[in-house]
Amino acid sequence: MTKSTINSISPDQRAVEQQLVDTVIASFDRTENARLKQLMQALTRHLHDFIREVRLTENEWDKAIEFLTAAGHITDDKRQEFILLSDVLGASMQTVAVNNETIGNATEATVFGPFFLEDAPEIPLGGDIAGGAAGRPCWVEGTVTDTEGRPVPNARIEVWEADDAGFYDAQYSDGRVAGRAHLFSDEQGKYSFWGLTPTPYPIPHDGPVGKMLAATNRSPVRASHLHFMVTAENLRTLVTHIFVEGDPQLEIGDSVFGVKESLIKRFEQMPAGAPTPDGRDLRDQAWARTRFDIVLARTRL
Amino acid sequence: MTKSTINSISPDQRAVEQQLVDTVIASFDRTENARLKQLMQALTRHLHDFIREVRLTENEWDKAIEFLTAAGHITDDKRQEFILLSDVLGASMQTVAVNNETIGNATEATVFGPFFLEDAPEIPLGGDIAGGAAGRPCWVEGTVTDTEGRPVPNARIEVWEADDAGFYDAQYSDGRVAGRAHLFSDEQGKYSFWGLTPTPYPIPHDGPVGKMLAATNRSPVRASHLHFMVTAENLRTLVTHIFVEGDPQLEIGDSVFGVKESLIKRFEQMPAGAPTPDGRDLRDQAWARTRFDIVLARTRL
Repeated sequence: MTKSTINSISPDQRAVEQQLVDTVIASFDRTENARLKQLMQALTRHLHDFIREVRLTENEWDKAIEFLTAAGHITDDKRQEFILLSDVLGASMQTVAVNNETIGNATEATVFGPFFLEDAPEIPLGGDIAGGAAGRPCWVEGTVTDTEGRPVPNARIEVWEADDAGFYDAQYSDGRVAGRAHLFSDEQGKYSFWGLTPTPYPIPHDGPVGKMLAATNRSPVRASHLHFMVTAENLRTLVTHIFVEGDPQLEIGDSVFGVKESLIKRFEQMPAGAPTPDGRDLRDQAWARTRFDIVLARTRL
Repeated sequence: MTKSTINSISPDQRAVEQQLVDTVIASFDRTENARLKQLMQALTRHLHDFIREVRLTENEWDKAIEFLTAAGHITDDKRQEFILLSDVLGASMQTVAVNNETIGNATEATVFGPFFLEDAPEIPLGGDIAGGAAGRPCWVEGTVTDTEGRPVPNARIEVWEADDAGFYDAQYSDGRVAGRAHLFSDEQGKYSFWGLTPTPYPIPHDGPVGKMLAATNRSPVRASHLHFMVTAENLRTLVTHIFVEGDPQLEIGDSVFGVKESLIKRFEQMPAGAPTPDGRDLRDQAWARTRFDIVLARTRL
């Protein structure tokens, strides 16, 4: 439907449509919770704007109901199709953006994703998060500071990532704990650990969201990344990733729109036998190293 | 979030949010089906507008995911929570409005609802649709014409309604066929049948949609109504209801926004023993009568 078609709608018809919107909005007037009232009335307004703008057909409405029904039926304790839907529409990332406003040079946030688990094991500085997960070892180091450049000691750093088959430990049914850990920055705000070089993997795409991506010629693949969540007293919690410079998926597009330029890091590839920062003997394994300096914003008052 | 709060968002932050919208919209650029591309890009735009306008919190986003998940899990062959959701947000009615534009004096359309079944029995003119359904008998008559006032003979008229307990036959598990039938207008476009005087009933409200209605102080009750679907060659199919003048629910508000002034009809209450139009003997039963003249638009070319 082109703009000119929309403009061809008669004043009578427009009035009928607008009156309906007004009636639905007014139906929420008696909501006691002011925020809920605002949300429902705004949702109504935007939903009706969409239907009216595209002149949604009854057949398309049927398809939308079928899509939501299928998404509901594939969703269970291990699969969350509605989060995937929110992710691939950029709604998750926009919610992150709205709740983590840019503050000076603070490190940018990105999507949390569905694979974080509480109770990941604590490792010492320089420890290994792999826990048996397969992949090329990667030394990660950096400093946690505030926006004034002051070191943040004792920041809790949660890290988690997929193995080189593209799966998080939570996706295996054997209860393994692998590719995740937490550690704390030292008195100078420094941290370091051994992780795995991130590799690209598709989001689950055998359901309705995957069908939508296929129908729109979109890749289900996420750019290679390593998850961080960093918490420290009086500072804003940071949920983010780092991405791998040169990953071709960065050009194709991350399927959930999590990439920000500032989060793309150089992962230096090291040949087998190159001396490691902590003297660890990796025998005949090649490895990588990267640096991620983390800047935390003050908590908003 | 007030307008002034929205205006307080920094230009940098606005730019970050807008860039994300642009990136998501561009991700649909390679969609081959032009209409699908239009729908996905417009959906993206309106969804992001909503999130940005209300500054959706991460906790609210969680609640939305939980709501959709619960709606998906209660939905089965007999229960369709996503249609209910569309109904109570007025989205179903807006889709009807968009697809049934006002044309002269053509009878207005309203929501189809989930209770229509194919293969309802044919009855003769003046026949009874009740099929054993409980309720006060109601004589319904009228004429089917086109917008120029010409009678429409042989129009197929499907009628269906709830019994006086508020249930359609489809909601019973015993396979009954009751409160539904089809008939055909005569050579002068006239039709008549015995139905039941419509009574109000709630939409299913023991699920997430019902919880939302309760949280927003809204009634789940539908205004009393009788469903019609009228089809005739070269004329636009009409899906509509008639409502009962004086029904208190018309003041409270129909839970799915199906009411239009032009569809509210006078149902004349007749005492037991009053002579019936066709001489039918209703013994000690009171009854009602109403008139519904139907005007069909030409099919759009």
